[in-house]
Amino acid sequence: MKKAVIIYSGGLDSTTCLFWALDEFDEVHTITFYYAQRHSIEVDFSKKTLELAQRIKNKTIKSHYFSIDLSQIGGSALTDPSIDVPKNRDEEKISSEIPITYVPFRNGVFLSITAALAEKNEIYNIIGGWNMLDYSGYPDCRDDFLTAFEKAINYGTKAGSQGKTFKILTPLLKMNKAQIILFGKKHGADYSYSYSCYSGDGIPCGECDACILRAKGFKEAGLEDDFLVRLKREGHNSP
Amino acid sequence: MKKAVIIYSGGLDSTTCLFWALDEFDEVHTITFYYAQRHSIEVDFSKKTLELAQRIKNKTIKSHYFSIDLSQIGGSALTDPSIDVPKNRDEEKISSEIPITYVPFRNGVFLSITAALAEKNEIYNIIGGWNMLDYSGYPDCRDDFLTAFEKAINYGTKAGSQGKTFKILTPLLKMNKAQIILFGKKHGADYSYSYSCYSGDGIPCGECDACILRAKGFKEAGLEDDFLVRLKREGHNSP
Repeated sequence: MKKAVIIYSGGLDSTTCLFWALDEFDEVHTITFYYAQRHSIEVDFSKKTLELAQRIKNKTIKSHYFSIDLSQIGGSALTDPSIDVPKNRDEEKISSEIPITYVPFRNGVFLSITAALAEKNEIYNIIGGWNMLDYSGYPDCRDDFLTAFEKAINYGTKAGSQGKTFKILTPLLKMNKAQIILFGKKHGADYSYSYSCYSGDGIPCGECDACILRAKGFKEAGLEDDFLVRLKREGHNSP
Repeated sequence: MKKAVIIYSGGLDSTTCLFWALDEFDEVHTITFYYAQRHSIEVDFSKKTLELAQRIKNKTIKSHYFSIDLSQIGGSALTDPSIDVPKNRDEEKISSEIPITYVPFRNGVFLSITAALAEKNEIYNIIGGWNMLDYSGYPDCRDDFLTAFEKAINYGTKAGSQGKTFKILTPLLKMNKAQIILFGKKHGADYSYSYSCYSGDGIPCGECDACILRAKGFKEAGLEDDFLVRLKREGHNSP
């Protein structure tokens, strides 16, 4: 019985991981974080994508939710409402500079909580949608961070110290956004409710880093964005 | 200007670290966790020890508090009220078996949040009271875990990726409880409000692992426990 848990925000990357994992594992868990993010609407959308995925794949997903108020730390436009989200940065800047939307050591925090949940539920595969190419500026999406963290989990848990081996799986690590989308489509992904925007009102702003990278990805993949297609079908104006 | 942050519960080990750090660093921060622990009274005591330390050392301490409800994970007698805390285990068992008071990957979770706080506040020394000898059963108190985690912080933070070096300092790692107490006393530690018991009502039970190890430590150090001396002075019955 192969089990895995996905760090799942419902965005493009983790939705892709979800559809891939449903093909690869017998029992799929997700962990979704409420972390006082300004775009916590992503959690509502993520639930719709879970329903969709269960229907498409005819398989049950065990979803977990964890609340951690990272505004207690602050220092990021995503968790401090007084800091503005940058708009309309050019792609080169997005891929090379660490932006103010960087949340201090967020992936470390999410990974450690996920490891705790995994240990509790006897799951030894932890999946994350990290990718280096489009976000080369984000330090906690890099391979050497993830390798060190995997070691820390194996040394630092009861299960790891008793012979179990935790693995951090990064199916998207070497892909760009277009490749991620095509990989997801190969695994039946439906992105109709997969939400990436930092703005948080349910209609993508089209101007934040996440929107810009997503639009570029779909363009390069030669596909329309399922989310925007759905919006249009439902009569919304989209960017 | 040397700055450090201590992962500070107010127990024997972290109180020792606090007094040591006040001698070693110019600016001392503490981070204390409310994690839905059954003995959250330790946080009230920890505040009293902070006041005491500031008075004794004539130095200001910058205290931080972080709430994270680890009962969302469960699986430990410390965070799940339906699981009993073991009583009167013999010392050999305490030092070799991982008990049900083990909280899944707690040190990983605490370290990652502390790293986030440290990065936000430009602090590059993280101090913890981990010690291997008395708790050889606890996987997340071991050297190789801490070494791997330090690497993860340096790879996985913006500051680390931009040339700063985070260090995890473990002044007590190779000490037993008696040595820790003597080391603390050398640095002026006052344990009158340093609370270790898992039972959580403010009077040490004398029967849980934490109480047993603490009593053994003071006995071997040839000292009376400041906390019990204070209780007696205040007219309480102590174990």
